Amino acid sequence: MKAQNLVGGVWDDNPQANTYKTVNPVTKASLPTNFQEATKQQIQISVNKASEVFDLYSSISFAERIKFLSSIKSGLLKKSEKILDTFQNESALPKSRAEGEFQRTVNQIENFIKLLEEGSFIKPIIHTGGPDLRKMLNPIGPVAVFGASNFPLAFSTAGGDTISALAAGCPVIVKAHPYHSGTSTIVAEVINNALLNSDLPVEIFSHLGGTSNSVGSNLVSHPLIKAVGFTGSFQGGKALYDLAQNRSEPIPVFAEMGSINPIFITEKYLLEDNKLPANLAQSISLGTGQFCTNPGMIIYCDSENKSDISKQVYELLSDALLPPMVHINIENNYKSKLKNLKKNNHVKLMGISDNNSSLATISAQQLIENTYLFEEIFGPFSLVVHCNSLNEMNKIASLIPGQLTATILAKKSDFSNISSIVKILKNKVGRLLFEGVPTGVAINQAMNHGGPYPASTDVRYTSVGTDSIYRWLRPISFQDCPDSFLPPALQNVNPLGINRVVNGIQTKTEL
Amino acid sequence: MKAQNLVGGVWDDNPQANTYKTVNPVTKASLPTNFQEATKQQIQISVNKASEVFDLYSSISFAERIKFLSSIKSGLLKKSEKILDTFQNESALPKSRAEGEFQRTVNQIENFIKLLEEGSFIKPIIHTGGPDLRKMLNPIGPVAVFGASNFPLAFSTAGGDTISALAAGCPVIVKAHPYHSGTSTIVAEVINNALLNSDLPVEIFSHLGGTSNSVGSNLVSHPLIKAVGFTGSFQGGKALYDLAQNRSEPIPVFAEMGSINPIFITEKYLLEDNKLPANLAQSISLGTGQFCTNPGMIIYCDSENKSDISKQVYELLSDALLPPMVHINIENNYKSKLKNLKKNNHVKLMGISDNNSSLATISAQQLIENTYLFEEIFGPFSLVVHCNSLNEMNKIASLIPGQLTATILAKKSDFSNISSIVKILKNKVGRLLFEGVPTGVAINQAMNHGGPYPASTDVRYTSVGTDSIYRWLRPISFQDCPDSFLPPALQNVNPLGINRVVNGIQTKTEL
Repeated sequence: MKAQNLVGGVWDDNPQANTYKTVNPVTKASLPTNFQEATKQQIQISVNKASEVFDLYSSISFAERIKFLSSIKSGLLKKSEKILDTFQNESALPKSRAEGEFQRTVNQIENFIKLLEEGSFIKPIIHTGGPDLRKMLNPIGPVAVFGASNFPLAFSTAGGDTISALAAGCPVIVKAHPYHSGTSTIVAEVINNALLNSDLPVEIFSHLGGTSNSVGSNLVSHPLIKAVGFTGSFQGGKALYDLAQNRSEPIPVFAEMGSINPIFITEKYLLEDNKLPANLAQSISLGTGQFCTNPGMIIYCDSENKSDISKQVYELLSDALLPPMVHINIENNYKSKLKNLKKNNHVKLMGISDNNSSLATISAQQLIENTYLFEEIFGPFSLVVHCNSLNEMNKIASLIPGQLTATILAKKSDFSNISSIVKILKNKVGRLLFEGVPTGVAINQAMNHGGPYPASTDVRYTSVGTDSIYRWLRPISFQDCPDSFLPPALQNVNPLGINRVVNGIQTKTEL
Repeated sequence: MKAQNLVGGVWDDNPQANTYKTVNPVTKASLPTNFQEATKQQIQISVNKASEVFDLYSSISFAERIKFLSSIKSGLLKKSEKILDTFQNESALPKSRAEGEFQRTVNQIENFIKLLEEGSFIKPIIHTGGPDLRKMLNPIGPVAVFGASNFPLAFSTAGGDTISALAAGCPVIVKAHPYHSGTSTIVAEVINNALLNSDLPVEIFSHLGGTSNSVGSNLVSHPLIKAVGFTGSFQGGKALYDLAQNRSEPIPVFAEMGSINPIFITEKYLLEDNKLPANLAQSISLGTGQFCTNPGMIIYCDSENKSDISKQVYELLSDALLPPMVHINIENNYKSKLKNLKKNNHVKLMGISDNNSSLATISAQQLIENTYLFEEIFGPFSLVVHCNSLNEMNKIASLIPGQLTATILAKKSDFSNISSIVKILKNKVGRLLFEGVPTGVAINQAMNHGGPYPASTDVRYTSVGTDSIYRWLRPISFQDCPDSFLPPALQNVNPLGINRVVNGIQTKTEL
């Protein structure tokens, strides 16, 4: 296992570095590698080199980018055994989850390859009456990507942020998450090897480690970084956002942060759906609750107190076999938040089971009077809220802050009564569900993973699905530009053969 | 002329208000109306009412929005005489400019009507394998628009920001520019009347006046404002941006700010193009230099000191008949900046002509050592930079901050030598020109009016052309949503008959 940082495409050994280790969450034993924390100088070199090769990389053909992504994909497949072993060692997540996340990561790469093959995502628009104006989307510049603690693969080193940025034509500097630095380093080697086996400059990709916040903040503060991708806590995301806005040149930060993903259940649905307790318990405990779409609040209507839904869900949760949380810090943070919760007399905490899962209950009225309870408690936990009426549900919906998702579970015969709550929630979320549970985020083009603040820092973009590429693109218009200076997508003969809008008409025809 | 503010769609008289007048820049005489400055309470009511009707307005049909925009257009045409008179009284801009800007404003409305008629700008994407996912763009919420001092019509009350936001489905609160409050108020009446004659709630549109910065800052600080459109100075735009980022919920600010729009001229072009001095002088003096795309820096290569370009341009500038600047404050600010310029011994100021126009010269080397000179001097002025080599031009290009535009004037025989400067400038600008001058901003879909910071606060968006609508839209995915709760654009039968992407294929066919 490499302990060094990948600086401007070169593994740079620094014997004087501060070091840190990853930990097996099951055995609590440290794993052997002494990972080196990146120095300020290494960060600077990484960004400077990325900036130097930016124009070159931004201008290479889609065919070259496709080769590069394909090479990353085949490199990951070749190293899959080592990656999966390290993933499990560092995360305690079960094999099936490791394999699922690995496959998701590979599928994401395939989706971006398809997007590049089709090619029209850069939206070429040509207008020839008057001045000859030709517009397309261009890469924004070097991008900083932060690995997420809860997704060692799919939201980390070769995850959605990195791959979408590389597909867009942006060099990437990854700040590895210290809880899975081993997994991250192996993946970084795969990307670096893909570059070494190509004609592309190795400086396109760097990989920096560290446990100190200063690594991330120095990276984001570097004037040549042009955008930031982050998935994690509100505290972490907001700190990076503020830092980036207070630079002398503010830059976009796409921080996908906390969310309680409320599930609203009508009285009829509650009493008629037998599978509800099992579905809820499974969603709450999935990945030991470490998903951004974990349902942290369940709001149900039960005017006659007929249901014992919380008891049923709690029993199922307690019986489940859950791995430990991915890191002791996350577990401690989770438990301290539950402890805090107990201080509120109106919340009834149903205990913390052996597998860490927990549930608490509160009345709608008390929740309405204690809106601080809308804050996320990251882990296998949900606050179950008892409403006596649809009105109370509507009131809660209107008080809830911005969310990644909300779910409405209703019977057809409820439809005439729930239009208010649909309207309220639509304007609070990035994704609105009417069946199932919010965990399980499909990676197709119709997905939106993002949401009004504080769920994310930029409601206009998704971090999942191929539309996530638009985070790293910005338009440039070329006016009366000689064909030889135009990017291929805008040249007269349409050498890429892609769809373009020419004088208002979508066409592949040459000019 | 109404002196009141339009608060939540109602003209709200406040006899206790602070008042202010507009001024005729030619006669320096105050115009009669005592415009009332909006109070904090009026601002709050305007935003609260806008927020209350947001969901209703966001959900109405495109047909209704088209009717509304058409009604604004016909209202403007009916009032054109009064609008043009007031425009000229308040701005001193000539009749032809007033008429041109009026027509531009009408054309913009027509373009957005066409966009709504076609309908696919909301980008419906449907994916039916696995969970049924349907995504489209939705309006972002109530928008604050700031009128621009230099465009009393096209970038003000019914200008691009307001019309694109209304077309997107967002209520708008306009902060009128105090230099043309009369023009602004008449246009606000037109919009209000269009609402009164419709079935739409009048609260969709408010119009607030004031000379104090607190009106704008109270508006942007209101928690229910969800985005801001601004065209003006760097100081003004950056202040609003910082304010918006420091709210408890940060929101997007689309501030289109200063730019020096450099023109780079090769030696061959300089010596061979006879019309160059006239073209430059005309662009510098157009609208008395009060355009965001005014060329504030002209960088030419002349290795043998053959050209007297600056002298020629200055003579043409001095001979031109220019109206005064639109306001004495702008003129004073302009003159004080020229005065400051004189303090630099390496800058040769060629005097300020009777019509306010001016030119200064500097050597490339001195500019490179005094990069503060890249700051915009808003007005009919340009800094003419003498380079001895293409290398010096490249160096200047690489030092220049983000710009709305840059122009490269070169002969065909230069093309093999200018690829470096093309590459450098491409990454610095929103629009790169190879002929003509940067003034004159076409309003078609291929236009990009925006650019890397500090030219604008969000390089990903244009403020001119129909793509400017994307500033006010954000995606929502509906998962397994009953057809009756889906917006029409996503319903099975495709009732709008618009293009949608269904399982990866673009089609108008129903599901």
